[in-house]
Amino acid sequence: MENKEEDVRLGANKFSERQPIGTAAQTQDKDYQEPPAAALFDPDELASWSFYRAGIAEFIATFLFLYISIMTVMGVSKSDSKCSTVGIQGIAWAFGGMIFALVYCTAGISGGHINPAVTFGLFLARKLSLTRAFFYMVMQCLGAICGAGVVKGFQKHLYQSKGGGANVVNGGYTKGDGLGAEIVGTFVLVYTVFSATDAKRSARDSHVPILAPLPIGFAVFLVHLATIPITGTGINPARSLGAAIIYNQKSAWDDHWIFWVGPFIGAALAALYHQVVIRAIPFKSK
Amino acid sequence: MENKEEDVRLGANKFSERQPIGTAAQTQDKDYQEPPAAALFDPDELASWSFYRAGIAEFIATFLFLYISIMTVMGVSKSDSKCSTVGIQGIAWAFGGMIFALVYCTAGISGGHINPAVTFGLFLARKLSLTRAFFYMVMQCLGAICGAGVVKGFQKHLYQSKGGGANVVNGGYTKGDGLGAEIVGTFVLVYTVFSATDAKRSARDSHVPILAPLPIGFAVFLVHLATIPITGTGINPARSLGAAIIYNQKSAWDDHWIFWVGPFIGAALAALYHQVVIRAIPFKSK
Amino acid sequence: MENKEEDVRLGANKFSERQPIGTAAQTQDKDYQEPPAAALFDPDELASWSFYRAGIAEFIATFLFLYISIMTVMGVSKSDSKCSTVGIQGIAWAFGGMIFALVYCTAGISGGHINPAVTFGLFLARKLSLTRAFFYMVMQCLGAICGAGVVKGFQKHLYQSKGGGANVVNGGYTKGDGLGAEIVGTFVLVYTVFSATDAKRSARDSHVPILAPLPIGFAVFLVHLATIPITGTGINPARSLGAAIIYNQKSAWDDHWIFWVGPFIGAALAALYHQVVIRAIPFKSK
Amino acid sequence: MENKEEDVRLGANKFSERQPIGTAAQTQDKDYQEPPAAALFDPDELASWSFYRAGIAEFIATFLFLYISIMTVMGVSKSDSKCSTVGIQGIAWAFGGMIFALVYCTAGISGGHINPAVTFGLFLARKLSLTRAFFYMVMQCLGAICGAGVVKGFQKHLYQSKGGGANVVNGGYTKGDGLGAEIVGTFVLVYTVFSATDAKRSARDSHVPILAPLPIGFAVFLVHLATIPITGTGINPARSLGAAIIYNQKSAWDDHWIFWVGPFIGAALAALYHQVVIRAIPFKSK
Repeated sequence: MENKEEDVRLGANKFSERQPIGTAAQTQDKDYQEPPAAALFDPDELASWSFYRAGIAEFIATFLFLYISIMTVMGVSKSDSKCSTVGIQGIAWAFGGMIFALVYCTAGISGGHINPAVTFGLFLARKLSLTRAFFYMVMQCLGAICGAGVVKGFQKHLYQSKGGGANVVNGGYTKGDGLGAEIVGTFVLVYTVFSATDAKRSARDSHVPILAPLPIGFAVFLVHLATIPITGTGINPARSLGAAIIYNQKSAWDDHWIFWVGPFIGAALAALYHQVVIRAIPFKSK
Repeated sequence: MENKEEDVRLGANKFSERQPIGTAAQTQDKDYQEPPAAALFDPDELASWSFYRAGIAEFIATFLFLYISIMTVMGVSKSDSKCSTVGIQGIAWAFGGMIFALVYCTAGISGGHINPAVTFGLFLARKLSLTRAFFYMVMQCLGAICGAGVVKGFQKHLYQSKGGGANVVNGGYTKGDGLGAEIVGTFVLVYTVFSATDAKRSARDSHVPILAPLPIGFAVFLVHLATIPITGTGINPARSLGAAIIYNQKSAWDDHWIFWVGPFIGAALAALYHQVVIRAIPFKSK
Repeated sequence: MENKEEDVRLGANKFSERQPIGTAAQTQDKDYQEPPAAALFDPDELASWSFYRAGIAEFIATFLFLYISIMTVMGVSKSDSKCSTVGIQGIAWAFGGMIFALVYCTAGISGGHINPAVTFGLFLARKLSLTRAFFYMVMQCLGAICGAGVVKGFQKHLYQSKGGGANVVNGGYTKGDGLGAEIVGTFVLVYTVFSATDAKRSARDSHVPILAPLPIGFAVFLVHLATIPITGTGINPARSLGAAIIYNQKSAWDDHWIFWVGPFIGAALAALYHQVVIRAIPFKSK
Repeated sequence: MENKEEDVRLGANKFSERQPIGTAAQTQDKDYQEPPAAALFDPDELASWSFYRAGIAEFIATFLFLYISIMTVMGVSKSDSKCSTVGIQGIAWAFGGMIFALVYCTAGISGGHINPAVTFGLFLARKLSLTRAFFYMVMQCLGAICGAGVVKGFQKHLYQSKGGGANVVNGGYTKGDGLGAEIVGTFVLVYTVFSATDAKRSARDSHVPILAPLPIGFAVFLVHLATIPITGTGINPARSLGAAIIYNQKSAWDDHWIFWVGPFIGAALAALYHQVVIRAIPFKSK
């Protein structure tokens, strides 16, 4: 047993002798113990300070996320020449970079979701209780509304005239295009979350929780590079809701369902892919 | 006891069996020993070479920080078409990237503050003595003045005609906007500093001091992306003072208080949030 | 023996006492055991679920790689002013960033090749069986075709009128130029793959597999910065094939051989350089 | 003794109980053993394959460095509108990113200098022998010449008409400005090299050699952001020599001394600062 765990710690596997990282295949899922599924309701949780602290951390993180990212969007929108701003690429960095920094900061407190779609995906994989998932989503949405609200406070007229950072399906694309872009984009993000955090589990490697925020932040950055021209990129229902409520125009509300349905479908597919295909959990002997 | 520390080292916590990084909550603050508050005055410190070396390191780091970042600002300012320069995004990279590299270089010598607001926040959390905090701030300001001075030496006329990289509240924004932007921006930075450095403490993980500079540098980069259009982004009173003294025009001095009051309020809020909400230090039994 | 392994773990070498990282030279290749070459055919492999799971992971990863990167290319192509898009630099980030994130996600499952040239190079170094190499390449090409196909589904007319992200030798360059650019570019990538993954082997350092994706992703980003003006940058035959099949115009097919021959030559040279010059495997006593 | 080393490994220091990373000060340099100075001539070295392999690795790395970076410069130069290229910021990424990737790849083989100024600085600190320093510099210059030569081979006419990536002092700056920019820029780079690699020594932390390439690459990127408008940024005599020899015009040769004298002065100052101020080596009891 001790021997086996040592194996896992070193990243060894059945083919270890001839397959370096370039080709490493994890062949023995049973080398580590899959953690038991979280209870749907856990009364103990509600009595612990860490539960409420986690909710506060999600609120503050989503607040800062919207504040910095929507402020960057407004700075780019208000200039006629994008060349004298940080540009569309700068917007993508703002969204992705904030997720990197905030996941790094809150991973040890709340898990660093900052996104109802991430919370939903992890809930489907039974990584957290329904109570906690619901509490997180509420706090994320409240944080996002406050963050967008503060940005509007800075530049009220401009905010309304330049779209307020709200997600809409842009001209030239159908609603189906927008929905598809949100599904695949959220899949990229939640798949990265599962991959980055699973490795730690399987290998008990204490470095992963520290390194994981980087690929997760990059995933957000990359999806923005690709889909800003289509929908402005949601892949985070709290971000879309916060901007929509503060902007509060018909155009934003008409498309708003896309930015909940798309991310939730994408997150569910990523959870399914990771749990069934990669981890093969349903096929494991108990 | 040994068992308990092992737990901490592995990042375990009360809910560890069912909550991977995605949802980890640190529930037992008593697993690690919060370090005692630093003395306000520590005569021993004044007799150690490491104290003065730390001050020199802060001076050199802030000098290099201003030199590279203000030089980049001037390179962008002097060109009519931002397209033929590194652009506003390049300026944001210069500020954030330098903080990343310099914190990495000086973390082991002085703690890598390079910013009086960071020093102030850490002092409020009693992480360093008043003597050391004051000494650091003086050295940071001297370094910043020298750094901006060298940039002016390169391009005297241009420096004065193009604003000298000094922080002012831009047209279309009130002084209250500027102050608010500085408060929230510095909160983002100092909150990241506390989060990135606290994790190491609680988990005794030797990798954190090495990885922490990356999210800290990114925080600076991201705040610049968002608030360059508002104030040029201070969030560092030494940087604002250095540029203002060398530029020395009424416009810069009129707004200068904003770039001390804002960052100090933001740093104080971040220290409060981290110590009271996240670490719950006032509520702990001694 | 134990002593010797300890040495290796600490990164020590013959000159260790006076040569820090700045000058460290690994002088004793025999300190670690070079893994035996992979069998050409390994029937056991075909019976393991991990083999098929690895193929699925390569398919999904290459699908997402093409989806995000070609979508970014289309977003930039459709705008007349590159300033109102993420720009050519954004395209380079999309390709390089996706490789970073995807290698991070799939390294533990399939090795994270996502590129037939990488698979080819590692096969030449006998890091994986011929069966596995062939299976990976097929899955990568299928994934790339699907990824490009989905992008075309979003914007059919635009996709065809703007080149569909297909690799061609641009005007002003000969086919020899294009071939040369592909050879050296792929050399940069596969050389980075070998270097990043070899260090782990030699030093049994468990951090390398986690850190390796960053320089590998950067290598892809950097080659794109340099050679987008020449060929649009292939260095990945699956990526070139996927875009060419979905675009399906004569111009793309005429040059298509370049994007297989170039990358395979570059990968072979990198494997040769690493195995013969750096590792000196042919000259080692067995 | 064992106890003491344990202390060092955990990053502990005299003030450890109350100073987390934010304020950590290394107060006891004697906790670790400064390695003895390298011999000026070491005949053993000349008989080891690792010595020649290190030279080859420096040659290949500098070749790839010039190839990718100068190719990127040419791609930006040839377009009238910088907006349709990767831009000046893209050039800075090419130089800095290549140094990151190449230092990562060659650190374990040659130490990853890829720059005669770095070799010079480390030689002054007696980290490598004179023989090795001289051999490295020759190989770096040869690699750089070949790298620039290959770029010229791709676009001969363009290369000559667009400046060939050669370093010159730009209009509006004096030669003194250029020299100063090179001195401070190289100081930033070599100071980062010393800081990033020293930490490992003092703390025997095996992660540092793997993480060090990131701040070193960023240092190169940042200096380029700041000084491309002044000299195009050398801070690497091999890079300047390679481009100058292949370009071979009077304008490049007139200023060429600046790109040797500047970097060597900057590297010497950085070595002095690190060894005397930070490490206090002259004042230590033997």
